[in-house]
Amino acid sequence: MSNGFTLWFTGLSGAGKTTVSRLVEKELRARGFKVEVLDGDVVRENLSKGLGFSKEDRDTNIRRIGFVCELLTRNDVVAIAAAISPYRAVRDENRARVGGRFVEVYCRAPIEVLAERDVKGLYKKALAGEIKNFTGVDDPYEPPLNPEVVIESDKETPEQSAAKVMAKLRELKYIAARKTRKRARMQKARNAE
Amino acid sequence: MSNGFTLWFTGLSGAGKTTVSRLVEKELRARGFKVEVLDGDVVRENLSKGLGFSKEDRDTNIRRIGFVCELLTRNDVVAIAAAISPYRAVRDENRARVGGRFVEVYCRAPIEVLAERDVKGLYKKALAGEIKNFTGVDDPYEPPLNPEVVIESDKETPEQSAAKVMAKLRELKYIAARKTRKRARMQKARNAE
Repeated sequence: MSNGFTLWFTGLSGAGKTTVSRLVEKELRARGFKVEVLDGDVVRENLSKGLGFSKEDRDTNIRRIGFVCELLTRNDVVAIAAAISPYRAVRDENRARVGGRFVEVYCRAPIEVLAERDVKGLYKKALAGEIKNFTGVDDPYEPPLNPEVVIESDKETPEQSAAKVMAKLRELKYIAARKTRKRARMQKARNAE
Repeated sequence: MSNGFTLWFTGLSGAGKTTVSRLVEKELRARGFKVEVLDGDVVRENLSKGLGFSKEDRDTNIRRIGFVCELLTRNDVVAIAAAISPYRAVRDENRARVGGRFVEVYCRAPIEVLAERDVKGLYKKALAGEIKNFTGVDDPYEPPLNPEVVIESDKETPEQSAAKVMAKLRELKYIAARKTRKRARMQKARNAE
Protein backbone atom coordinates (compact mmCIF):
# COMPACT_ATOMS: atom_id res chain seq x y z
CA MET A 1 0.00 0.00 0.00
CA SER A 2 1.04 3.58 -0.64
CA ASN A 3 2.48 5.82 2.06
CA GLY A 4 1.08 8.77 0.19
CA PHE A 5 -1.95 10.81 1.02
CA THR A 6 -3.52 14.08 -0.06
CA LEU A 7 -3.83 17.05 2.26
CA TRP A 8 -6.37 19.43 0.82
CA PHE A 9 -6.35 22.98 2.20
CA THR A 10 -9.48 24.96 1.33
CA GLY A 11 -10.62 28.42 2.38
CA LEU A 12 -10.79 32.06 1.43
CA SER A 13 -7.85 34.08 0.21
CA GLY A 14 -5.64 35.02 3.14
CA ALA A 15 -7.04 32.35 5.48
CA GLY A 16 -3.66 30.69 5.94
CA LYS A 17 -3.69 27.88 3.37
CA THR A 18 -0.23 28.47 1.95
CA THR A 19 1.42 29.50 5.22
CA VAL A 20 0.21 26.47 7.15
CA SER A 21 0.76 24.08 4.27
CA ARG A 22 4.41 25.14 4.05
CA LEU A 23 4.88 24.46 7.77
CA VAL A 24 3.28 21.04 7.42
CA GLU A 25 5.44 20.33 4.37
CA LYS A 26 8.55 21.05 6.44
CA GLU A 27 7.40 18.78 9.27
CA LEU A 28 6.62 15.94 6.88
CA ARG A 29 9.94 16.28 5.07
CA ALA A 30 11.72 16.15 8.40
CA ARG A 31 9.97 12.83 8.97
CA GLY A 32 11.31 11.49 5.68
CA PHE A 33 8.18 11.87 3.57
CA LYS A 34 8.28 12.91 -0.04
CA VAL A 35 6.06 15.97 -0.38
CA GLU A 36 4.82 18.21 -3.17
CA VAL A 37 2.87 21.41 -2.56
CA LEU A 38 0.43 22.42 -5.28
CA ASP A 39 -0.64 25.88 -4.33
CA GLY A 40 -2.93 28.13 -6.31
CA ASP A 41 -0.12 30.08 -7.96
CA VAL A 42 1.94 27.04 -9.00
CA VAL A 43 -1.13 25.42 -10.49
CA ARG A 44 -2.46 28.47 -12.31
CA GLU A 45 0.98 28.82 -13.90
CA ASN A 46 1.67 25.19 -14.77
CA LEU A 47 -1.68 23.52 -15.30
CA SER A 48 -4.36 26.13 -15.75
CA LYS A 49 -3.03 29.13 -17.59
CA GLY A 50 -5.87 30.66 -19.54
CA LEU A 51 -8.60 29.51 -17.17
CA GLY A 52 -10.65 32.24 -15.53
CA PHE A 53 -12.77 32.39 -12.40
CA SER A 54 -16.18 31.25 -13.62
CA LYS A 55 -17.61 28.27 -11.77
CA GLU A 56 -16.77 26.06 -14.72
CA ASP A 57 -13.16 27.24 -14.96
CA ARG A 58 -12.65 27.00 -11.22
CA ASP A 59 -13.99 23.45 -11.25
CA THR A 60 -11.68 22.52 -14.11
CA ASN A 61 -8.73 23.97 -12.23
CA ILE A 62 -9.59 22.01 -9.08
CA ARG A 63 -10.09 18.77 -11.03
CA ARG A 64 -6.63 19.14 -12.54
CA ILE A 65 -5.12 19.53 -9.11
CA GLY A 66 -7.07 16.44 -8.07
CA PHE A 67 -5.65 14.45 -10.98
CA VAL A 68 -2.08 15.34 -9.98
CA CYS A 69 -2.82 14.61 -6.31
CA GLU A 70 -4.07 11.18 -7.34
CA LEU A 71 -0.89 10.42 -9.32
CA LEU A 72 1.34 11.52 -6.46
CA THR A 73 -0.66 9.87 -3.67
CA ARG A 74 -0.67 6.45 -5.28
CA ASN A 75 3.08 6.70 -5.77
CA ASP A 76 3.99 7.23 -2.12
CA VAL A 77 4.11 11.00 -2.22
CA VAL A 78 2.25 13.37 0.08
CA ALA A 79 0.38 15.79 -2.16
CA ILE A 80 -0.55 19.06 -0.49
CA ALA A 81 -3.09 21.17 -2.34
CA ALA A 82 -3.60 24.75 -1.19
CA ALA A 83 -6.25 26.38 -3.33
CA ILE A 84 -9.42 28.30 -2.48
CA SER A 85 -11.46 25.47 -4.08
CA PRO A 86 -14.79 27.09 -3.25
CA TYR A 87 -17.14 24.36 -4.51
CA ARG A 88 -17.92 21.42 -2.29
CA ALA A 89 -18.90 19.01 -5.05
CA VAL A 90 -15.55 19.17 -6.82
CA ARG A 91 -13.60 18.85 -3.57
CA ASP A 92 -15.64 15.74 -2.83
CA GLU A 93 -15.03 14.48 -6.35
CA ASN A 94 -11.30 14.77 -5.70
CA ARG A 95 -11.69 13.01 -2.36
CA ALA A 96 -13.33 10.08 -4.16
CA ARG A 97 -10.76 10.15 -6.92
CA VAL A 98 -7.81 9.97 -4.53
CA GLY A 99 -9.54 6.98 -2.98
CA GLY A 100 -9.72 7.51 0.72
CA ARG A 101 -6.36 8.87 1.76
CA PHE A 102 -7.64 12.45 1.60
CA VAL A 103 -7.51 14.90 4.48
CA GLU A 104 -9.51 18.09 4.08
CA VAL A 105 -8.23 21.06 6.05
CA TYR A 106 -10.74 23.86 6.23
CA CYS A 107 -9.04 27.20 6.82
CA ARG A 108 -11.87 29.16 8.43
CA ALA A 109 -11.69 32.86 9.13
CA PRO A 110 -14.34 35.58 9.28
CA ILE A 111 -14.30 37.62 6.10
CA GLU A 112 -14.15 40.84 8.18
CA VAL A 113 -10.84 39.72 9.62
CA LEU A 114 -9.47 38.80 6.18
CA ALA A 115 -10.67 42.08 4.64
CA GLU A 116 -9.08 43.96 7.54
CA ARG A 117 -5.80 42.05 7.26
CA ASP A 118 -5.79 42.09 3.42
CA VAL A 119 -2.18 41.01 2.97
CA LYS A 120 -2.29 41.14 -0.82
CA GLY A 121 -4.61 44.15 -1.05
CA LEU A 122 -7.14 42.01 -2.91
CA TYR A 123 -10.15 42.45 -0.62
CA LYS A 124 -9.97 46.21 -0.94
CA LYS A 125 -10.04 45.90 -4.71
CA ALA A 126 -12.81 43.31 -4.64
CA LEU A 127 -14.95 45.38 -2.29
CA ALA A 128 -14.39 48.39 -4.54
CA GLY A 129 -15.56 46.30 -7.50
CA GLU A 130 -12.17 46.43 -9.22
CA ILE A 131 -11.82 42.65 -9.13
CA LYS A 132 -14.81 40.56 -10.10
CA ASN A 133 -15.66 37.01 -9.00
CA PHE A 134 -13.70 37.28 -5.79
CA THR A 135 -14.53 34.41 -3.47
CA GLY A 136 -16.27 35.58 -0.32
CA VAL A 137 -17.08 39.00 -1.76
CA ASP A 138 -19.07 38.49 -4.95
CA ASP A 139 -18.43 34.80 -5.55
CA PRO A 140 -19.62 31.93 -3.35
CA TYR A 141 -17.63 29.78 -0.93
CA GLU A 142 -19.13 26.49 0.19
CA PRO A 143 -17.51 25.36 3.45
CA PRO A 144 -16.79 21.66 3.93
CA LEU A 145 -19.44 19.76 5.88
CA ASN A 146 -17.07 17.24 7.46
CA PRO A 147 -13.52 18.44 7.15
CA GLU A 148 -10.92 16.33 8.92
CA VAL A 149 -9.33 19.48 10.36
CA VAL A 150 -10.54 23.04 10.93
CA ILE A 151 -7.95 25.73 11.45
CA GLU A 152 -8.69 29.31 12.39
CA SER A 153 -6.03 31.82 11.59
CA ASP A 154 -7.76 34.54 13.61
CA LYS A 155 -7.44 32.46 16.80
CA GLU A 156 -4.32 30.34 16.28
CA THR A 157 -0.75 30.90 15.22
CA PRO A 158 0.35 29.13 12.02
CA GLU A 159 2.41 26.78 14.22
CA GLN A 160 -0.65 25.83 16.25
CA SER A 161 -2.61 25.22 13.06
CA ALA A 162 0.16 23.04 11.66
CA ALA A 163 0.24 21.09 14.93
CA LYS A 164 -3.49 20.38 14.58
CA VAL A 165 -2.90 18.97 11.10
CA MET A 166 -0.04 16.81 12.30
CA ALA A 167 -2.14 15.51 15.21
CA LYS A 168 -4.87 14.46 12.79
CA LEU A 169 -2.34 12.70 10.57
CA ARG A 170 -1.11 10.75 13.60
CA GLU A 171 -4.68 9.90 14.57
CA LEU A 172 -5.33 8.61 11.05
CA LYS A 173 -2.04 6.69 11.26
CA TYR A 174 -0.78 8.34 8.10
CA ILE A 175 2.29 9.31 10.07
CA ALA A 176 3.90 7.50 12.97
CA ALA A 177 2.80 8.39 16.48
CA ARG A 178 6.20 9.56 17.50
CA LYS A 179 8.97 10.71 15.30
CA THR A 180 11.97 8.71 16.38
CA ARG A 181 15.30 9.75 14.98
CA LYS A 182 15.99 6.21 13.95
CA ARG A 183 12.81 5.96 11.94
CA ALA A 184 13.42 9.27 10.19
CA ARG A 185 16.94 8.11 9.32
CA MET A 186 15.65 4.81 7.99
CA GLN A 187 13.00 6.43 5.87
CA LYS A 188 15.47 8.92 4.50
CA ALA A 189 17.82 6.08 3.62
CA ARG A 190 15.00 4.22 1.88
CA ASN A 191 14.13 7.28 -0.16
CA ALA A 192 17.74 7.75 -1.15
CA GLU A 193 18.13 4.19 -2.39
CA MET B 1 19.04 10.91 -5.50
CA SER B 2 15.78 9.95 -7.19
CA ASN B 3 15.26 6.61 -8.92
CA GLY B 4 12.77 8.29 -11.17
CA PHE B 5 13.26 9.29 -14.76
CA THR B 6 11.14 10.46 -17.65
CA LEU B 7 10.67 8.40 -20.78
CA TRP B 8 9.37 10.66 -23.51
CA PHE B 9 7.80 8.95 -26.54
CA THR B 10 7.35 11.26 -29.51
CA GLY B 11 6.17 10.57 -33.05
CA LEU B 12 3.24 10.64 -35.42
CA SER B 13 -0.14 9.16 -34.66
CA GLY B 14 0.00 5.40 -35.06
CA ALA B 15 3.80 5.19 -34.83
CA GLY B 16 3.70 2.93 -31.78
CA LYS B 17 4.05 5.36 -28.86
CA THR B 18 1.28 3.96 -26.71
CA THR B 19 1.80 0.30 -27.63
CA VAL B 20 5.51 0.32 -26.88
CA SER B 21 5.16 2.52 -23.79
CA ARG B 22 2.69 0.02 -22.30
CA LEU B 23 5.16 -2.83 -22.86
CA VAL B 24 7.94 -0.83 -21.25
CA GLU B 25 5.64 0.05 -18.36
CA LYS B 26 5.02 -3.65 -17.76
CA GLU B 27 8.73 -4.45 -17.84
CA LEU B 28 9.56 -1.67 -15.41
CA ARG B 29 6.78 -2.63 -13.01
CA ALA B 30 8.06 -6.20 -13.07
CA ARG B 31 11.39 -4.77 -11.92
CA GLY B 32 9.73 -3.00 -8.99
CA PHE B 33 9.59 0.51 -10.39
CA LYS B 34 6.69 2.84 -9.76
CA VAL B 35 5.43 3.95 -13.17
CA GLU B 36 2.81 6.34 -14.53
CA VAL B 37 1.91 6.56 -18.20
CA LEU B 38 0.70 9.93 -19.41
CA ASP B 39 -0.58 9.28 -22.86
CA GLY B 40 -2.23 11.78 -25.15
CA ASP B 41 -5.78 10.73 -24.29
CA VAL B 42 -5.28 10.71 -20.50
CA VAL B 43 -3.73 14.13 -20.65
CA ARG B 44 -6.24 15.74 -22.97
CA GLU B 45 -8.97 14.51 -20.61
CA ASN B 46 -7.37 15.42 -17.29
CA LEU B 47 -5.08 18.36 -17.90
CA SER B 48 -5.88 19.94 -21.21
CA LYS B 49 -9.58 19.79 -21.92
CA GLY B 50 -10.50 22.80 -24.00
CA LEU B 51 -7.11 23.12 -25.67
CA GLY B 52 -7.05 22.77 -29.44
CA PHE B 53 -4.33 21.89 -31.92
CA SER B 54 -2.78 25.24 -32.74
CA LYS B 55 0.96 25.46 -32.10
CA GLU B 56 0.29 27.46 -28.96
CA ASP B 57 -2.24 25.01 -27.56
CA ARG B 58 -0.08 22.02 -28.40
CA ASP B 59 2.87 23.64 -26.66
CA THR B 60 0.75 24.35 -23.59
CA ASN B 61 -0.41 20.75 -23.53
CA ILE B 62 3.16 19.43 -23.75
CA ARG B 63 4.37 21.82 -21.05
CA ARG B 64 1.69 20.53 -18.70
CA ILE B 65 2.79 16.97 -19.31
CA GLY B 66 6.35 18.14 -18.62
CA PHE B 67 5.31 19.68 -15.32
CA VAL B 68 3.73 16.41 -14.17
CA CYS B 69 6.73 14.40 -15.39
CA GLU B 70 8.97 16.66 -13.32
CA LEU B 71 6.87 16.13 -10.17
CA LEU B 72 6.86 12.35 -10.64
CA THR B 73 10.51 12.01 -11.65
CA ARG B 74 11.83 13.87 -8.62
CA ASN B 75 9.72 11.66 -6.39
CA ASP B 76 11.14 8.32 -7.53
CA VAL B 77 8.51 7.56 -10.12
CA VAL B 78 9.12 6.68 -13.75
CA ALA B 79 7.00 9.06 -15.80
CA ILE B 80 6.22 7.81 -19.30
CA ALA B 81 4.85 10.42 -21.67
CA ALA B 82 3.37 9.22 -24.94
CA ALA B 83 2.18 12.19 -26.93
CA ILE B 84 2.82 13.30 -30.51
CA SER B 85 4.66 16.38 -29.15
CA PRO B 86 5.55 17.67 -32.60
CA TYR B 87 7.68 20.67 -31.62
CA ARG B 88 11.32 20.18 -30.75
CA ALA B 89 11.72 23.31 -28.64
CA VAL B 90 9.07 22.32 -26.10
CA ARG B 91 10.33 18.76 -25.86
CA ASP B 92 13.77 20.19 -25.13
CA GLU B 93 12.25 22.58 -22.60
CA ASN B 94 10.79 19.57 -20.81
CA ARG B 95 14.12 17.77 -20.96
CA ALA B 96 15.73 20.74 -19.21
CA ARG B 97 12.88 21.00 -16.74
CA VAL B 98 13.14 17.35 -15.69
CA GLY B 99 16.81 17.99 -15.15
CA GLY B 100 18.77 15.33 -16.93
CA ARG B 101 16.96 12.08 -16.27
CA PHE B 102 15.06 12.33 -19.56
CA VAL B 103 15.09 9.68 -22.26
CA GLU B 104 13.60 10.66 -25.59
CA VAL B 105 12.22 7.80 -27.66
CA TYR B 106 11.58 8.78 -31.24
CA CYS B 107 8.93 6.56 -32.82
CA ARG B 108 9.83 6.88 -36.47
CA ALA B 109 7.69 5.53 -39.28
CA PRO B 110 7.11 6.63 -42.86
CA ILE B 111 3.86 8.49 -43.16
CA GLU B 112 2.86 6.26 -46.12
CA VAL B 113 2.99 3.24 -43.83
CA LEU B 114 0.97 5.00 -41.14
CA ALA B 115 -1.61 6.25 -43.63
CA GLU B 116 -1.86 2.74 -45.07
CA ARG B 117 -2.20 1.15 -41.63
CA ASP B 118 -4.50 3.90 -40.31
CA VAL B 119 -5.66 2.03 -37.21
CA LYS B 120 -7.96 4.81 -36.01
CA GLY B 121 -9.07 5.92 -39.48
CA LEU B 122 -7.61 9.37 -38.80
CA TYR B 123 -5.21 9.61 -41.73
CA LYS B 124 -8.01 8.96 -44.19
CA LYS B 125 -10.01 11.81 -42.67
CA ALA B 126 -7.01 14.13 -42.50
CA LEU B 127 -6.05 13.42 -46.12
CA ALA B 128 -9.65 14.09 -47.14
CA GLY B 129 -9.50 17.40 -45.29
CA GLU B 130 -12.12 16.36 -42.73
CA ILE B 131 -9.68 16.83 -39.84
CA LYS B 132 -7.52 19.92 -39.84
CA ASN B 133 -4.11 20.43 -38.18
CA PHE B 134 -3.26 16.75 -38.33
CA THR B 135 0.41 16.21 -37.61
CA GLY B 136 2.27 14.86 -40.61
CA VAL B 137 -0.52 15.74 -43.03
CA ASP B 138 -1.19 19.47 -42.72
CA ASP B 139 0.66 20.21 -39.49
CA PRO B 140 4.42 19.99 -38.93
CA TYR B 141 6.41 17.36 -37.05
CA GLU B 142 9.95 18.19 -35.99
CA PRO B 143 11.92 14.98 -35.39
CA PRO B 144 14.37 14.89 -32.47
CA LEU B 145 17.97 15.63 -33.38
CA ASN B 146 19.55 13.42 -30.74
CA PRO B 147 16.97 11.05 -29.34
CA GLU B 148 18.28 8.45 -26.91
CA VAL B 149 16.32 5.74 -28.73
CA VAL B 150 14.83 5.44 -32.20
CA ILE B 151 12.20 2.80 -32.76
CA GLU B 152 10.69 1.89 -36.11
CA SER B 153 7.35 0.20 -36.02
CA ASP B 154 7.50 -0.65 -39.72
CA LYS B 155 10.65 -2.73 -39.19
CA GLU B 156 10.39 -4.02 -35.62
CA THR B 157 7.80 -5.76 -33.50
CA PRO B 158 6.59 -3.82 -30.44
CA GLU B 159 8.56 -6.30 -28.30
CA GLN B 160 11.76 -5.54 -30.19
CA SER B 161 11.14 -1.81 -29.79
CA ALA B 162 10.53 -2.21 -26.06
CA ALA B 163 13.74 -4.23 -25.79
CA LYS B 164 15.67 -1.35 -27.38
CA VAL B 165 14.28 1.04 -24.80
CA MET B 166 15.16 -1.30 -21.95
CA ALA B 167 18.68 -1.73 -23.32
CA LYS B 168 19.16 2.03 -23.34
CA LEU B 169 17.91 2.28 -19.76
CA ARG B 170 20.47 -0.33 -18.72
CA GLU B 171 23.19 1.52 -20.60
CA LEU B 172 22.25 4.74 -18.81
CA LYS B 173 22.22 2.77 -15.54
CA TYR B 174 18.67 3.85 -14.80
CA ILE B 175 17.86 0.18 -14.40
CA ALA B 176 20.09 -2.65 -13.29
CA ALA B 177 21.87 -4.77 -15.85
CA ARG B 178 20.14 -8.07 -16.33
CA LYS B 179 21.95 -11.34 -16.39
CA THR B 180 22.08 -12.53 -19.98
CA ARG B 181 21.82 -16.24 -20.61
CA LYS B 182 25.37 -16.28 -21.83
CA ARG B 183 26.58 -14.48 -18.75
CA ALA B 184 24.50 -16.78 -16.55
CA ARG B 185 26.05 -19.82 -18.30
CA MET B 186 29.54 -18.44 -17.88
CA GLN B 187 28.93 -17.77 -14.24
CA LYS B 188 27.60 -21.29 -13.78
CA ALA B 189 30.65 -22.70 -15.50
CA ARG B 190 32.98 -20.65 -13.30
CA ASN B 191 31.14 -21.75 -10.19
CA ALA B 192 31.52 -25.38 -11.29
CA GLU B 193 35.27 -25.09 -11.77
